[in-house]
Amino acid sequence: MWQDEQFGSLRIGFQTNRLLFKNQSPYQLIEVFETVDYGTILRLDGTWQCSTELEHTYHEMIVHPALTTAPSIENVLIVGGGDGGTAREVLRYPEVRNVDLVEIDSDVVTACKEHLSSIGEGAWDDPRLNLIIGDGIQFVRDAHQKYDVIIVDGSDPIGPSVGLFNSAFFESCARALKSDGVLVTQAESPRVMLDNHIGLIQTIRQHFENVAPYYQGQIIYPGGVWSWIYASQNVDRRKILRDPDPNLMIYNTEIHQAAFAIPNYVQHIINRH
Amino acid sequence: MWQDEQFGSLRIGFQTNRLLFKNQSPYQLIEVFETVDYGTILRLDGTWQCSTELEHTYHEMIVHPALTTAPSIENVLIVGGGDGGTAREVLRYPEVRNVDLVEIDSDVVTACKEHLSSIGEGAWDDPRLNLIIGDGIQFVRDAHQKYDVIIVDGSDPIGPSVGLFNSAFFESCARALKSDGVLVTQAESPRVMLDNHIGLIQTIRQHFENVAPYYQGQIIYPGGVWSWIYASQNVDRRKILRDPDPNLMIYNTEIHQAAFAIPNYVQHIINRH
Repeated sequence: MWQDEQFGSLRIGFQTNRLLFKNQSPYQLIEVFETVDYGTILRLDGTWQCSTELEHTYHEMIVHPALTTAPSIENVLIVGGGDGGTAREVLRYPEVRNVDLVEIDSDVVTACKEHLSSIGEGAWDDPRLNLIIGDGIQFVRDAHQKYDVIIVDGSDPIGPSVGLFNSAFFESCARALKSDGVLVTQAESPRVMLDNHIGLIQTIRQHFENVAPYYQGQIIYPGGVWSWIYASQNVDRRKILRDPDPNLMIYNTEIHQAAFAIPNYVQHIINRH
Repeated sequence: MWQDEQFGSLRIGFQTNRLLFKNQSPYQLIEVFETVDYGTILRLDGTWQCSTELEHTYHEMIVHPALTTAPSIENVLIVGGGDGGTAREVLRYPEVRNVDLVEIDSDVVTACKEHLSSIGEGAWDDPRLNLIIGDGIQFVRDAHQKYDVIIVDGSDPIGPSVGLFNSAFFESCARALKSDGVLVTQAESPRVMLDNHIGLIQTIRQHFENVAPYYQGQIIYPGGVWSWIYASQNVDRRKILRDPDPNLMIYNTEIHQAAFAIPNYVQHIINRH
C-alpha cells in the first residue's frame, strides 16, 4: 500500500506493509507505518518526519555543525525533536552535561519510543537528558543566558511549529543563549519552500550577527535538498573544535565545510536584501 | 492526474495537466507531460529525466566542474544528452569550438526539441554543435586522442544506457581523451543505488588515475542526492581555470569545491576497496 506526502503538486511515497499507529493528538495527526524497504516511518499531519532507515542525514546535519564548533557545549536545549534523534546525536559528546528537550506533543514521544525506538536509542535513558513536555516557545521565553547551544528541531511552519519561525521566538533564543552560544534551526527546502527559507534567514538576522544557511541532499522531504541555519553573535562556524564521531553516516569535517556553500539562486536573493 | 517514477518501494510523483507526447521508440518508452507546477517533464521507461523547471541542477553539475578545470575545452564529446541541456551548458564557454553530441535515440531529440525546447535553447542552433544520431559506445571506440572533455550523460543502467557503465566503455573513453583530458559521467544516487555508484567508481579507476565522485541534492531523481564522477589522469579538479557564468542557477566555485565532499557511508566503502 502506497503512502505519500503530498506537497502541492509533488509527492514522495513509500510502499508500506502496515499501519502501526494512528492517533489524532491535541496537536496533530500522528501516523506510523512499516515500510517495505526503509524501516518504520513517522508522518505528522501528512508530512514525512523520519524513518528508522532514513533519519541520519537530518539528525546528523542539525546537530554536528553546532556541536563541533560551539566554544562550549555543556548545556544544550532542543526545541521539538520528540523522536529522540537529535538528542542521540548531541549526547555523543562527552562534554555535554545537560540536554533539555522540550517537546510539545507527548504522543509523538510515546509513538517514537514504541515504534521507532532505534532513533532515540541510548538518548531516552541517558541521565544527562531532561525531557520536558511543554511549549518550547514559552520555555525559551523564560530561560535567560543559560544555554551553550539551542537546536530548533520542529516540523514545517504549519500546525504546532508555526511559532518556531517568527521573530519573537528567535529574540527569546538569543536571550536564552550565552553570548558565545550557537543556535541551529531546520530551515525547510530551499528548492520548493524558498520563501520560507529566505524569510527565516532574514528573521534570524534580526537577532544574530552571523547567520549562515547550510545544505544537504536528502531523500525523505520534498525538494531533495534540505537546509538548516547556523546562527551566533561571534562564533567561527568554520573552525572545528571537536572531532566528530567517525562512525557517523554522513557528517565529517569536509561535509561540514561543504554544507555552507550556497547555490546561486539562494545567494542572489540573499544579496538583494 | 498523478504520474510517478517508481523506484522499488519509493516513488516520486508530479501532478500533471496532460500527456503531451507518448511514443515507444526502438530504444525506450518516451513520455512527456505538462506538470501543474514544474514545467514540462520527460519520462523514459518510467523514470524521470528532466523537467523544464527542474533541469538546472543536473545539467549544471554534469558540465561545469569539468569545463572550469580542464586544461583545454576546445573539443568536447557528449554521449547521450538528447535533451540538449548538457550541450547548452557546455556552449556557454567561448573557448569551446566543437561539441560532438552522440545520442542513440532520435525520438528523444525530436520530443525534447518540440516539447522541452527551453532545455536545449540556443544549443541546437549553435554552429559549434555537431549532433550525431548513433551508438555512443561505438562512436567512442572509434575516436582516438581527440577530445579535451567527454561527458557521459546517459540514463540509468537499464535499457539503452547499460553499456555506458562497463569497463570496456571507459577504456575507450580514456583512449578518446587527450592525455590531459577530463571525463565526467552521471553516477546514480549514492543513497538508493549505492552498488551502482560504488561499482562505477571502481570501474572508472581501472582506466583513470584520479577518480572523484561528487554530489548535489536534487528533487527529480529517487534518493534526493545525485552523483557524478570526475576522472582524469593528471588534472587538478580543485583548480578553477575559468570563471563560471554568474547567472547559473546552482553552480559557483564554492559549490564546486563543496560537491567533492564525500559522506562517510560512501567513503567507508571506497576505503575498503
